[in-house]
Amino acid sequence: MKVINDLLGFNKKIVQDTSYFSFSLDSVLLYNFCTVKKNTKMIDICSGNCPIPLMLSNKIDEKIYAVEVQKEIYDLAIESIKLNNLEDKIEVLNMDAKDLCNKFETDTFDLITCNPPYFKINEQSKKNDNEIKSIARHEILINIEDIIKLSRKLLKNNGNLVMVHRPERLSEIFLLMKKYNLEVKRLQFIYPKEGSESNMIIIEASKNGKEGIKILPPIIVHDKNGNYNKEIEKIFRGD
Amino acid sequence: MKVINDLLGFNKKIVQDTSYFSFSLDSVLLYNFCTVKKNTKMIDICSGNCPIPLMLSNKIDEKIYAVEVQKEIYDLAIESIKLNNLEDKIEVLNMDAKDLCNKFETDTFDLITCNPPYFKINEQSKKNDNEIKSIARHEILINIEDIIKLSRKLLKNNGNLVMVHRPERLSEIFLLMKKYNLEVKRLQFIYPKEGSESNMIIIEASKNGKEGIKILPPIIVHDKNGNYNKEIEKIFRGD
Repeated sequence: MKVINDLLGFNKKIVQDTSYFSFSLDSVLLYNFCTVKKNTKMIDICSGNCPIPLMLSNKIDEKIYAVEVQKEIYDLAIESIKLNNLEDKIEVLNMDAKDLCNKFETDTFDLITCNPPYFKINEQSKKNDNEIKSIARHEILINIEDIIKLSRKLLKNNGNLVMVHRPERLSEIFLLMKKYNLEVKRLQFIYPKEGSESNMIIIEASKNGKEGIKILPPIIVHDKNGNYNKEIEKIFRGD
Repeated sequence: MKVINDLLGFNKKIVQDTSYFSFSLDSVLLYNFCTVKKNTKMIDICSGNCPIPLMLSNKIDEKIYAVEVQKEIYDLAIESIKLNNLEDKIEVLNMDAKDLCNKFETDTFDLITCNPPYFKINEQSKKNDNEIKSIARHEILINIEDIIKLSRKLLKNNGNLVMVHRPERLSEIFLLMKKYNLEVKRLQFIYPKEGSESNMIIIEASKNGKEGIKILPPIIVHDKNGNYNKEIEKIFRGD
């Protein structure tokens, strides 16, 4: 079912199809984590229905690029962009992100954001009844190494890749970042509630960056009653 | 100045020399993080005045080994052990941990604990006025790679290295663990207070372990008034 939701606090609307998946907390926390300037040149890959560009368009004056490989999801992104009158500000490309290096020069972007498929391909990925969901969740068309490799090419020197991912991939991410000379600079752990293990990480790595990593304060999503913590509410309000 | 302190909650006393350094929160948090059984065979390296073996001796029936290379600190450890009547339970070795592979067979231990020197050797390490402190803090006699390499040899298959360290070394630690086939299994971040970046990590890696990492709940050390949080007080009480 197609619905139009408010991106609360951002003064934007977003078109979603509930049979695929909905824009979620991951994207909002990734948005919150990013540091951008008015003139930041960025591209959002694995963009889905474009929540990250929609939110960041409030902070960036430059044209924002986004890539979404699945036509059905790309169409939702285009609808959202029209609905917000952002056709001149956000350009969504319906293509495989791995081919971006043919479209853009190397050393083009200050920032690449990415909320990628989290899961390795395994027995489970095949069992998923909905192919569109499956491609969004499992590394069927693109994997971590593809993303880091293309970021290495497309980022300017000292440009940043900001990615949200699952903690169980942390070791692999560190190794791949090193392999492609992206230095992990900032890392934040998200915990669903007090006393729980982390279920989400947000990571920033800088192309040819100097050694040295900061572990940002943890974010605890829910309070004891299962409601969003004040910190999360603040982020949703766009404070 | 030599002083005798209580290891609160552990029913143990520890001999310290304030001109060197004092047993600290790092060791207590490392103790708290460890999972041991009555029959765990362990060695504590870079043991200092032996706080970790003293605390773990309450939980382990097997003989516990410890290594401290500096004679002055080793002497304090021996005094502590005598004071607690643990001569039969804890054996401290005054030697370079790098030579342990000549003393013990490979595949000997279930657990290696380590609170190592945190800092790389640089201009600063030479400026330190006190050589004993300097060796305890800087990688003058032993570094992360030495520790991981010797752990690889001395641990049984699926045995664990548990180490406390600084977040800025995280990337390096992940790479070295991988290099020596130690799989990072558990990771905990310590934050000095709410809203601060992490200043300490505790990491557990398993020899030839399966992939998959857990990020434990964060520990926030101080409350808004600068007092220890309840969680820390609990750990100090040995609860």
